[in-house]
Parts: sequence; structure tokens; C-alpha cells
Amino acid sequence: MSDKNKTPLINTFRDLHPADQAEFFKDLTPTAQLSLLKPLTIEEAADLFDELDDDETLAAAKDLSLPYLADILDDMDPDEAADLLGDFSASKKQLLLSLMEETSDVLPLLSYPDETAGGRMTTEYLCLLQDTSAEKAIQYLRETAPPTDIPYYLFVVDENQKLIGITGLRELVCASPQEHISTFINPIVVSITATSDQEQAARLMQHYDLSALPVVDAENTLLGVISHDDILDVMEAEATEDIYRLASVSDTALEPESSLSKQLRGRLPWLLLNTLTALFGSWVISNFEDLFIQVAILAFFQSIVAAQGGNAASQNVAMIVRGLALGDMDTKKIWPILFRQLSVSVSLGFIIGGLVGFGVGVWQGNPYLGLVLGLALLGNMVVAGVVGTLAPLVLQLIGYDPALASNVLVTALTDSLGFLIFLSLAKIFLPFIQQYI
Amino acid sequence: MSDKNKTPLINTFRDLHPADQAEFFKDLTPTAQLSLLKPLTIEEAADLFDELDDDETLAAAKDLSLPYLADILDDMDPDEAADLLGDFSASKKQLLLSLMEETSDVLPLLSYPDETAGGRMTTEYLCLLQDTSAEKAIQYLRETAPPTDIPYYLFVVDENQKLIGITGLRELVCASPQEHISTFINPIVVSITATSDQEQAARLMQHYDLSALPVVDAENTLLGVISHDDILDVMEAEATEDIYRLASVSDTALEPESSLSKQLRGRLPWLLLNTLTALFGSWVISNFEDLFIQVAILAFFQSIVAAQGGNAASQNVAMIVRGLALGDMDTKKIWPILFRQLSVSVSLGFIIGGLVGFGVGVWQGNPYLGLVLGLALLGNMVVAGVVGTLAPLVLQLIGYDPALASNVLVTALTDSLGFLIFLSLAKIFLPFIQQYI
Repeated sequence: MSDKNKTPLINTFRDLHPADQAEFFKDLTPTAQLSLLKPLTIEEAADLFDELDDDETLAAAKDLSLPYLADILDDMDPDEAADLLGDFSASKKQLLLSLMEETSDVLPLLSYPDETAGGRMTTEYLCLLQDTSAEKAIQYLRETAPPTDIPYYLFVVDENQKLIGITGLRELVCASPQEHISTFINPIVVSITATSDQEQAARLMQHYDLSALPVVDAENTLLGVISHDDILDVMEAEATEDIYRLASVSDTALEPESSLSKQLRGRLPWLLLNTLTALFGSWVISNFEDLFIQVAILAFFQSIVAAQGGNAASQNVAMIVRGLALGDMDTKKIWPILFRQLSVSVSLGFIIGGLVGFGVGVWQGNPYLGLVLGLALLGNMVVAGVVGTLAPLVLQLIGYDPALASNVLVTALTDSLGFLIFLSLAKIFLPFIQQYI
Repeated sequence: MSDKNKTPLINTFRDLHPADQAEFFKDLTPTAQLSLLKPLTIEEAADLFDELDDDETLAAAKDLSLPYLADILDDMDPDEAADLLGDFSASKKQLLLSLMEETSDVLPLLSYPDETAGGRMTTEYLCLLQDTSAEKAIQYLRETAPPTDIPYYLFVVDENQKLIGITGLRELVCASPQEHISTFINPIVVSITATSDQEQAARLMQHYDLSALPVVDAENTLLGVISHDDILDVMEAEATEDIYRLASVSDTALEPESSLSKQLRGRLPWLLLNTLTALFGSWVISNFEDLFIQVAILAFFQSIVAAQGGNAASQNVAMIVRGLALGDMDTKKIWPILFRQLSVSVSLGFIIGGLVGFGVGVWQGNPYLGLVLGLALLGNMVVAGVVGTLAPLVLQLIGYDPALASNVLVTALTDSLGFLIFLSLAKIFLPFIQQYI
């Protein structure tokens, strides 16, 4: 592409919202990314970098010269800059920090892992002392206040930087000029400690409809603020994680277009584990070899028992994983939940077992085969209800992600026990089944 | 409980944040709810109702006297009041509207379905004409502006109520008093039409990091505003819907503790449909009855082929459903995605088919059984890749929810074709397999 053609492209790109620039930019080759960055000002490049996802920023940044990258980092949002710095090697991070002009806003953020409240907060917020007058506060906002993503909340602290309350621009505007801020702050502040999980921050902000959540240390010192748009990203990431884990995809960054090697790394391990449990199911069946030689039709129906148990258990796991994620449910209610799910499982078992048992009994002209199939479906539905309910709850209790339960644990049990129940019952009723063959 | 004991309870309840009051309130019996509402002021009751979920508000409201309920509706947020009114019968709705003091803010909201941008918006926002001066605007905010959940954005319109731009309290505070608002508004306003889907509103707000999104009609007349907390609810509801649909739960309001009849209604239909497809799988197997009489061990391994195809397809469906939901992917990329997924499927098939084929060949001392099993796994992985990728994409293209694809369609094909491939191959290789038995 000649330089003549490039100029209008750059101008069109400049006119886009940084969020749209990022959408376009992330799909370019490294060379195209470099040539697009060159004509941008540092400020424009920083705005663009703020909008890229963590892995996209890292990919775009890795070929830039260190002084240029340090300039961009200086202009980025402190929380995004800290995320990017945290993704570099220790030596590159130190080098970049030494090249940056202003590191006081980024340094405090580097000590918190990405997925904590501290890792999500920004240090750019508006903070005032409690004895400031409304007039002085407005003057401060006009003349010296830093740019911020959270321009409408004013966090009020005492002389030791302890969080006292919160107020808003509207209260400031409506107050009389000499009034001290302390007279109109809202002292009931919902806050979160920096080491808490980001998901907890999301829940708090959603529960109390907050658009900004102050982050404090154990002594209530104000450290930073999480803004509403960060929380949207957290909620989206957590939902993706649950959906992927329930479907046995272990890499939550995987997309349908991801590279072959990335897809194999993210999908193969769980499939292999599932294969092992399936082989265990085969071993269970292999103990009934004699049975198939005598009554081959049993082989037609064993899969239904295992599959319907698995389907019912998936329903259970999905409801419990989602209930736990949304904080609607706590693990203390384990017994009433289990009891309710048992009654649901028994009902589902009677209905599905009854219908399938009757239908197959008529189809094969073999009432005892229908009886065995119906009873096995009932039994495996009960197994599914118990395992599908207990597995995620117990995983949560012992500190694991309940979404992991869906796969290996639950499928292994509903499959193997499904085969075992069906074939054991068939063995017991064998003489009766054979009468009709 | 005596009245003496109730007073402190009411005071404790009053001290809670309305969001926490709602958590406590929703689990009470109807009688307890009524006795808790009685001592509350209308305003307190309205704040509580604003925080309840739609079905919880309806349950709490249905036994209240109409004049009392109308008073509460008057004090509720207009969008919440409109949601509640919309859930009543037409005659009860008319009666309540006639009893309410002020319906001008609720009436325009009643015409939009719950799940559209119009159904999510509020009519309580701050709106100014473009030629207002900064000083007058501040005076308006101090003296006459209505209470609102979006107190920091000022929407600027012309004399025909057409949306011109947006500005914020901070810009107002920093402007010189005589300056017209039109000189410092931001004219690039992202907006949405009232009839658009709420999910689109959520995507826009997340993409552009907006905390308020103006809702307009086809002529750009400002109708209302969606605030950030509504969008959190939308995103949460959409994620729940996807997780539930992927797990064959059709009622997204279902919780592990929901009543037995509600659970049966929300779970049984999909399980029955899945049972039908499983019976179709049984019919496929039944066509190979002779085979089992000759080689019973085939019955041990047919389930592995079907199950691993199902597992691989679930991974595909989850990635594509999530990619479509997040707007990361569009249906135009159908061919590159399919091609990539095919290469992944073939690789997964070679690895899993190779390992299982070799393992079972050694375990049963039957190399041809291993070969047949390995080839069948490879074949069904390819089926899974194609069906798991195309089904959700095609459903999206023809206007259905892609999450519905996971169940009936995909499982039916991976199960039936899994059995068919395995047993057909076994039939072809039968003489060789029998040599080793």
C-alpha cells in the first residue's frame, strides 16, 4: 500500500472511538499494527492500548521500542498499565519502570494479582479531606483535579487517608459554598479489601447498584476505586469461565478461531480424562459379557440409561453452579436443596422411566425388558440428582470451582452406575426377559 | 411473635440497605411480608419493591389493597413500576393506573416489552435545552431537578426533544457561568432505539464503557435512559439463559430450591426430547443385533464413541455460543471457523482414537477391535466438529437462540452417527475381529 493511500486510512482510524479502534487493531498482523501506531500520538496510542484485552495489549507491545512503550505506559490508565507491566518478565518490567516518567500511580497496583479487587482498581479517583468546603472542592475540581474514569464520585478521607464517606458532584453543586463536605457525605460506604476476589467486588457492585466501589486495606485506608465498566468485564469473564468449564473447555481465552495448538491444549486434557471414565464404564459393562450373549437386545438400551442420567445431572449442576456464582445460594442450605432435588429426580425418574419402559416393552414385545429399563432409569435419575447436587456443593465447600464438577466426577458416576444398575437388574430378571425372546 | 418483639426487628430491618432488605423480604411467607410492610412508610416500601426481582415484586404485591399498592407504585422507579404493572391483568393494571397520582412517567414505558431497550429504560433523567447557560443549569439542578438514578449525566436536546449531545456535571461545574451548554456538549452520542434488544444495549454500554445509554425513537427523539445497574442485570440474565439452555433447562428462573412442579415444567420437556433421540440411537443399534450375538464385546465400547463425540461437540457449541453472545464472532466467518474446527476435530480424533484404539486392542488382545474403535472415534470426532460448529451458527443465522443447539440436534447426531459408524465398521471388519476371539 502506498503512502498516498495510507493517509485517509489513518484519518478514518483516528475518527473511530478507541473501543472500535481496538476491535480493528487486534486483528491486524504485527507489521500492520506497527505502521498504524507510528502516525498516532502517544496519547492516542495509550487510549487504544487501554481498550485492548490483556493478551492483545501484550502482543501489540512486545515489538515496540522500550522508550516508546514507556511513554505509552505513562499515558495509559494506571490499572491497564499495571496489568500490562505485570505480564512482562521481571527484568523488562524494571527497565520499563525506570524509563517511565511517573510511576507513583502504577507501582501500588503491581502488587495485586489480576483477579483481585486490588488488581482491578484504579488509583485515579477524586479524593477530598472531610473539612474541605464545598467551594474549595469545586475550585479543586476546576483547576487541579486529575483526569479520571470515575468523575462523579468524591471519596472523603481523614488526615490518615482512612475512608470516611462518599459524596457526589451533585451534592457538591447543591451545597452552599462554605459548607464542609463532612456535613453532606454519605457515611455508609460499601467497600472491599484489596485482596478480595474480583467476583466478590462484582457481586457487591451489582447488589448495591454501585457505579464505583472503593478498595481499602485492613485498616480502612483508601487504596483505589473499581469503576462500573471494570465490573462488566469481570462478570463477562466469570460467565465465560462457567460456560467453558461446564462444557469441559479448560482455557477460557479459547475462541473458535484460536490456533490448533491452543485449542488442543485447552480441549484435549478434559476429553482424555472423560475418555478414561468412559473406559471405566466399558469395564463395568465387560463384567456382564455372558448377558449379551444370551440377550443381545440389552446392548440396544444400556446407553439410554447412562445418557439420561448424564442429562439430568447436567441440569442439576448448571442450576447449582449458577446459583453459587450469583450468590443466590449458600452451601449451608445443602440439606433442603438435596431433599428438593431428590424429589425432583424421583419424579423425573418415574415419568421418563415409565414412558420409556412402557414404550420399549411394547416395541420389543417384552414387558420384563421394559420393567428393567424403567427401573434402571428411575435408579440412575436418583444417582444423577444426588451426584449432580452434591458434587458442585462439596467442591465449593472445599474451595474448588463448582463448575469443574460437571465433567469427570458426575459423568463417571452417572455412566458407570447407569450401566451397573441396568445390567444388574437385567441379570436378576434374565429368566423372565428370556421368556419373551 | 408478640408486638413487643417486633419493634426491634422492624428497626433492624429499617437500618438495612434496601438491597439487603429485599434479600431478607423475598424469603418470607406472604403473611410475614404483609406484617413487615405495614409499619414501613410508602417511600420505604417503594424502595424495597424497587430492589425485588420481577416475580418477587409480583408475589408481594398481589395481596395488597389496590389504593395502598397504587401509592407504592407512585413512589417506585418508573421502570420498575412499569414492569410490575405489565405483569398484572389488563383490568387490574387500568384500575391501578386510575388510582395512581402521577402516571406520566410510567405510561410511556408500558408499551415496550420487558426485554427491549425501551423496557429497560427509565424516564427519570436530567435533560436540558442546548441554549441553557451553565449557571441556569446548575440552578435547575439545585432547585427543580427530579431525583434520578443517573444524577451525573445531562442529556441535551433541541426544542423538538431531539437528542443533540451529552454532558456531565463536572463539565458544568468547570464551565464559566454564562457559557451555553451547546459549547461544551459532547455531540458524539451513542444511543439505541427503544425497540432494540436489551442485549444489544448491554453490548453497546460495555463496548464503549458507558454508565448511561440514551434510548431514542426512529427520529432521534430522546425517550429515556438505561443506567449501568440495569445492564449488569441484563448481562447476568443473558449468561444464566445461555448456561441453562446449554444444560437443557428451559426455565431460566429455575433455582435448585424451586417447587417440584416448577422444576418438572422447566426440566422435563428437554429430557423427554433427549429421550426420544436416545431411543432413535437404540433403534440404530437394534439394526446390528446379529453382530452382538457374534461378538458380544462390541457392546462394551459403542458408548465410548457416542460419549466422546458428544463431549467434543459440547466444547464446540460452548465456544461458538459464547463467541456469538459476546459479539466477538459473526456468522459471516462461518467457513474459516468450520475449517479451523475441522482441523481441531481431526487432531483430537487421531489422538483420542489412537490412544483408545491401542489401549483397547491390548486390553482385549484384539488389534482389529482396536482399529475399528479408533477409526470410529476419529469419524465421530469429525461429525462432532461439523455439527457442533454448524448447528449454533445456522440457528443464529435463521434467528434462533444458538444455545438451543447443544441438546437435541447435536446429541442426536453424535449419538446416532457414533453408533452407526462404530457398528458399520465392526461389520466390515467382523471376520478379522473374530479371528482373535
